[in-house]
Amino acid sequence: MPNIRFTEKPLSDWMRGDAADSEIVISSRVRIARNLQHLPFPMLATNQQSEEALQRLTDILQYDDLGRFGTFHTLKISELDEIDKQVLVEKHLISPNLANESRNGAVLISDDESVSVMINEEDHLRIQCLYPGCQVREAWERATVIDDAFEAHVDYAFDDRRGFLTSCPTNVGTGMRASVMMHLPALVMTHQINRILSAVSQVGLTVRGIYGEGSEAVGNLFQVSNQITLGQTEAEIIENLHGVVLQIIEHERSARERLMNESMLRITDRVMRSFGILSYAAVLESKEAAQRLSDVRLGVDLGILERPSTAAMNELNVMTQPGFLQKSFGDKMNTGERDMYRAKLIRQKLSTTL
Amino acid sequence: MPNIRFTEKPLSDWMRGDAADSEIVISSRVRIARNLQHLPFPMLATNQQSEEALQRLTDILQYDDLGRFGTFHTLKISELDEIDKQVLVEKHLISPNLANESRNGAVLISDDESVSVMINEEDHLRIQCLYPGCQVREAWERATVIDDAFEAHVDYAFDDRRGFLTSCPTNVGTGMRASVMMHLPALVMTHQINRILSAVSQVGLTVRGIYGEGSEAVGNLFQVSNQITLGQTEAEIIENLHGVVLQIIEHERSARERLMNESMLRITDRVMRSFGILSYAAVLESKEAAQRLSDVRLGVDLGILERPSTAAMNELNVMTQPGFLQKSFGDKMNTGERDMYRAKLIRQKLSTTL
Repeated sequence: MPNIRFTEKPLSDWMRGDAADSEIVISSRVRIARNLQHLPFPMLATNQQSEEALQRLTDILQYDDLGRFGTFHTLKISELDEIDKQVLVEKHLISPNLANESRNGAVLISDDESVSVMINEEDHLRIQCLYPGCQVREAWERATVIDDAFEAHVDYAFDDRRGFLTSCPTNVGTGMRASVMMHLPALVMTHQINRILSAVSQVGLTVRGIYGEGSEAVGNLFQVSNQITLGQTEAEIIENLHGVVLQIIEHERSARERLMNESMLRITDRVMRSFGILSYAAVLESKEAAQRLSDVRLGVDLGILERPSTAAMNELNVMTQPGFLQKSFGDKMNTGERDMYRAKLIRQKLSTTL
Repeated sequence: MPNIRFTEKPLSDWMRGDAADSEIVISSRVRIARNLQHLPFPMLATNQQSEEALQRLTDILQYDDLGRFGTFHTLKISELDEIDKQVLVEKHLISPNLANESRNGAVLISDDESVSVMINEEDHLRIQCLYPGCQVREAWERATVIDDAFEAHVDYAFDDRRGFLTSCPTNVGTGMRASVMMHLPALVMTHQINRILSAVSQVGLTVRGIYGEGSEAVGNLFQVSNQITLGQTEAEIIENLHGVVLQIIEHERSARERLMNESMLRITDRVMRSFGILSYAAVLESKEAAQRLSDVRLGVDLGILERPSTAAMNELNVMTQPGFLQKSFGDKMNTGERDMYRAKLIRQKLSTTL
């Protein structure tokens, strides 16, 4: 059996860290896509070739290059059961693509889960670094160090004019995607979100909802990331994203202030009702749970509620996802059962969390 | 200053008694209308004549005839402030008509508030007896004893063919109105209520909602009473009402059983959400409060919730009315303030009530 400690706890250790702006920015992530020279991309590789890629890339663990980021654990996707795979996706430690489509897919995960390295996803190598709050620069620096560690032992597919070559043309160049997960309830409530999002898309960034289908933002969580990987340096991309995120933070902050000045009672009522419903409901659909958890998170941020802590809120966001629910309460469930167990889990968590 | 102890507490002492079927029947009431011979009805009386009626009827307190029902206290309507009047109306101890329209209006109220005698309402004398649960026979027996006590000292306007004469023709004959306040949430939820109500109206009974405008039943509370006062004896009217109420109780009971068998999770969710909202909301309009209190009462009846007690629920029904709210929190309030204080009061009550 593979080591599946990563699917036992909903909250990665790295998420427990304090960070600037963490009342609005949940987490920052940088992902770097790389491929091995002289081997076809995973989709076109033979089984033997993808085995070779896996072997050459996991060899990194023989050396001490990654030691400063803690011990790494290797999980082979084919050895994981469906629920464990789903939980890893819900914790953003692997992509749905790696979970469901890969051949000889694997992931190396650091002790605190802040670094995950996917092998044989769309590209041979996808290095991902996660930080709490708004720390996209830090995430990039760490990803670069890990990238260098791999490059010391393998040759990357690289073209002098195009940069790093990737399976999908949208990643060619830097191969880097930096993203920031933001909680923007006040911009949604004050109907400013669409204006902000369309402005963001005009400076080479893209925004999508987290969890939930399509681009609908469930629970007022938005992921802002760079769209461009060609024609800009990594540093330029990171600085651009960082600057825009700081501006969105400011907009969200003034929207929250305005709400508190102009509609304190209405907001308080909304937050308290959501807290009451989460504390007592017997059935909670995932969309309603996300919306009410968003209200409660806002309530804590605004000082309307004293608890739960930000860590507990982050935990609940993961715990209430389908995979984790099945992990907690056992085996397969239909949607109705999930809604019942989701409510039960939230009730328990809110009644015990200080 | 008049004695206004009756407006301090929301729950009359008589409401604390245990009674049969009290999970469905909140209270029973019998009201008897009488008028003094040789004096015009209050609406047509001169000021002197209505003073005379007041004097002759309050004289009863000199004798010991009412002593077995406790000490009686006389409140003159003209000496009460607006909020006290409103609270007495909300406790069903006086009618809106006596509070707002009467000249030389007064009410005699017994210690436990189970007997209230209105003077110079629409008729010179209106005797009202209240009992918890389904005790319409007991209420009638008591009202009869009090009626006899008055008749021992004054002459009633009576016609051999028509019976007791009253200001409004709908009361001529027995002058009696017997009514039962019922909580019928399951019949409402299962859409059977209209069928039941129309059946009830075909056997000489009438149904209307309690509190709230018009005949809309706020909080699933319905008052069932006799429509006919002519051509039937008091005993026949009481037995007819009692029999129909027992049938409605049975219908409500089977509807509750069916709900628990077929939709337990949905009902549990509804009850628990209402409890959560009442426990935390910052703003509650009167209609929403009544509906959610009805859910919670049903939840206690069905064993979904252990508390609050029936007494606490009855208390909340009165406490959340506009008059009592202003009495509790002081002076005049606008609607928005009332909604805030209503929510506050319910929060306090639910957090302290076992």
